[in-house]
Amino acid sequence: MGKNEKQFVEEITPMEVDFPQWYTDVILKTDLVDYSPVKGFMVIKPYGYAIWENIQSYLDKKFKETGHKNCYFPLLIPESLLNKEAEHVEGFAPEVAWVTHGGKNELSERLCVRPTSETIICSMYSKWLKSYRDLPYLYNQWCSVVRWEKSTRPFLRTSEFLWQEGHTLHETYEEAQEETLQMLNIYKEMCENLLAIPVVTGRKSDREKFAGAEATYTIEALMHDGKALQSGTSHFLGQHFTKAFDIQYSDREGKLAYPYHTSWGVSTRLIGGLIMVHGDNRGLVLPPRVAPIQVVIVPIAAHKGNVMEKVDELYNELKSSIRVEVDDRANYSPGWKFNEWEMKGVPIRIEIGPKDIENNQVVIFRRDTLEKQKVSMDNLKETIEDLLDNIHNTLLSKALEMREKKTYTATNLDEFKNIIENTPGFIKAMWCGDEKCEEKIKEETGATIRCIPFEQENISDKCICCDKQATKMVYFAKAY
Amino acid sequence: MGKNEKQFVEEITPMEVDFPQWYTDVILKTDLVDYSPVKGFMVIKPYGYAIWENIQSYLDKKFKETGHKNCYFPLLIPESLLNKEAEHVEGFAPEVAWVTHGGKNELSERLCVRPTSETIICSMYSKWLKSYRDLPYLYNQWCSVVRWEKSTRPFLRTSEFLWQEGHTLHETYEEAQEETLQMLNIYKEMCENLLAIPVVTGRKSDREKFAGAEATYTIEALMHDGKALQSGTSHFLGQHFTKAFDIQYSDREGKLAYPYHTSWGVSTRLIGGLIMVHGDNRGLVLPPRVAPIQVVIVPIAAHKGNVMEKVDELYNELKSSIRVEVDDRANYSPGWKFNEWEMKGVPIRIEIGPKDIENNQVVIFRRDTLEKQKVSMDNLKETIEDLLDNIHNTLLSKALEMREKKTYTATNLDEFKNIIENTPGFIKAMWCGDEKCEEKIKEETGATIRCIPFEQENISDKCICCDKQATKMVYFAKAY
Repeated sequence: MGKNEKQFVEEITPMEVDFPQWYTDVILKTDLVDYSPVKGFMVIKPYGYAIWENIQSYLDKKFKETGHKNCYFPLLIPESLLNKEAEHVEGFAPEVAWVTHGGKNELSERLCVRPTSETIICSMYSKWLKSYRDLPYLYNQWCSVVRWEKSTRPFLRTSEFLWQEGHTLHETYEEAQEETLQMLNIYKEMCENLLAIPVVTGRKSDREKFAGAEATYTIEALMHDGKALQSGTSHFLGQHFTKAFDIQYSDREGKLAYPYHTSWGVSTRLIGGLIMVHGDNRGLVLPPRVAPIQVVIVPIAAHKGNVMEKVDELYNELKSSIRVEVDDRANYSPGWKFNEWEMKGVPIRIEIGPKDIENNQVVIFRRDTLEKQKVSMDNLKETIEDLLDNIHNTLLSKALEMREKKTYTATNLDEFKNIIENTPGFIKAMWCGDEKCEEKIKEETGATIRCIPFEQENISDKCICCDKQATKMVYFAKAY
Repeated sequence: MGKNEKQFVEEITPMEVDFPQWYTDVILKTDLVDYSPVKGFMVIKPYGYAIWENIQSYLDKKFKETGHKNCYFPLLIPESLLNKEAEHVEGFAPEVAWVTHGGKNELSERLCVRPTSETIICSMYSKWLKSYRDLPYLYNQWCSVVRWEKSTRPFLRTSEFLWQEGHTLHETYEEAQEETLQMLNIYKEMCENLLAIPVVTGRKSDREKFAGAEATYTIEALMHDGKALQSGTSHFLGQHFTKAFDIQYSDREGKLAYPYHTSWGVSTRLIGGLIMVHGDNRGLVLPPRVAPIQVVIVPIAAHKGNVMEKVDELYNELKSSIRVEVDDRANYSPGWKFNEWEMKGVPIRIEIGPKDIENNQVVIFRRDTLEKQKVSMDNLKETIEDLLDNIHNTLLSKALEMREKKTYTATNLDEFKNIIENTPGFIKAMWCGDEKCEEKIKEETGATIRCIPFEQENISDKCICCDKQATKMVYFAKAY
């Protein structure tokens, strides 16, 4: 280990020693994010924001392909609107920020900074919707929301975060149900195809569902430390809100009817997942399709001969289809640069010096496997494109392998507790469906039901907690 | 005038009768925007938001091409930070929304919802910036801001609006000055090239500049009713904020220095300008490059022969490079559809029926000139692309002509008042530079100095107000 490398590695606490500290070291040292002067609020720095932009543009395209349109609803919601759906207000009122003054004047009604927009959007839908011909409503907005959290961690749980929230209305129960699952599938596909994160899909238990939902569906990912991350949710809201907000339309028979309703969202939390699924003790490992910089070119002996000329040539060749940068800073050594870009998780590094040019080759370093190889300069763009795909697939397989290794089954509570304490991960177990068992397990172990997976297995006939007849197999885990 | 047409036209108040009502009719009836349950806040509907998305993607590309990166800073700013720059707090404190409670707890310090982000961003820059090597800082964010306005109009002045705000730091005065003007030029170019809106560029008077700026530069457009719209601003902030926030770095000589600072922004207000520059008594007229739908295809006698087949063929041919939609709604007549799409300002309508197919032609209607013509189906994509460019150029010329027609010169106050009362528009006049004259003119006429244009003319030697030696030619106007 060279001096430079050591210096870098020492900056990041090894994850085996202290996983939370490893996470904090990585996000701060790689310039993804910083703490702000307001407790619980984060500043997303350019390198972190560029990841979010890639997630946005991927999803926005999928949303539009499936007929959704973007719009924008107000940031502030009157207290009386928030109060209209009983379960919703109970769930959100304790964690909203209240605006009480505009300029020097006290407001006649408090306004909350949106924690989510069902209420304000439903109040508008109620005004707009007239006929079955107007349906479906397929709208989405990209914005920030505020939830007053007591204990926060950048990306994972912050008092403000960026997200998208889709809000749709449909004529029939079935159509709304289909939409709910379609959007869940788009999230799942995005996690796998963009972020290289495998997810378990399923339904939330009633205890864990969204405040006001009839059913919440979720994608759950497993982190390096064996904790689960709820990475996106899609809610089937039935007619809970449409009745509370009196959204009625004239149906095909000319009668007044309430539409069926869905909402769904993913947030900057995904960036936290990205870090905790792929990162290692050198720092970030970014999957190529979401990496702000996919390839960094580091010139060796840049002052010599035609090195910079060749570097420029290469850069110009790659940049049409690859997010590539040249690190030509004169005041840093190549070794220093290598370590910095490794820490920042750039998938591929190209080194090019006078000897490489003589041999018509470059040195390629893969961040994911830490392998170095020499490749020909001929058809370099195709080589790199293939390699980026290969890296994506390798990362996805590795993450899947890790998840499978950390997925256990338990048939009794002792086994369950033993796993949680010694080898945390997903635990597949049978459940009777009673909230009391769910709560007891949470109290005794800290683990919650992450989801009732679509893919059911019959592990045993008895509930892991009460020994009564089990009705479903569920995934338990401690979670972020 | 057919019955359908009449019905539509009657829905919109003619602009000559009541311009503000015309504006309100147009924005509501074309589904750009709606009023929300919170006074002064607007809902941007999908058709309006799609215009904003086109502005965003155009500008975001320009920002990135000039080296800027996006990031995200918190929505809420502690009162103590807002108070740090004296002029700034004086300008903004009276119009901010205050968050006083998080959940059930009163906060120890009030937080304002950002009215603009100089203060929170400078507090972070002060933490981050170490060396001249880190400069320049070229950052931007897309977000919403809140300013508690008493009198509001959708897009033009609302208590919340969407915008982008660039915040940059530089080593030298000259470099910051260059950045300020570079961004102003990007705004000007965007107005002309995307929105087909010609603008006058120049500097704001000290009275009209941004609270805390050393100099504010502006782009000013003229609306149909002769009122000006400040359409974008770029501020040279000097060291006002960098000193107030103690942003220091180690310069090339190793000494501590304060950087120079700029900020610049445009907002959803541009959409208001778009409407009031190009719209007519039938509704919106959207310039093609920013129009959410550039071409609408309306089938005639859709049930007959191969009409829908041909429509699909056409649609598939155009959609690779043109934002095209087919209006195949069965429950509306072609005439009804024509009027609706005219009202919504779609630049080109294509009509296609059995006879057109026989003759291998389509009927093309231009929204800007209201002209209909028959064109061959051969090379239709090229024909349409050329026509879209032609429409853009025609709209820009027309707007320029309108502005020139409504730009006057005045050499004394009587002339000035006569213009303002009878033929409102831009008034070019000489000014001594004294704020007292500026205020007197505002009091007596309602007109303000829109800018001290870069292109100076010598109209006379005397200030239009006090007859003393004039130092500059300025543009006056009543403004939104």
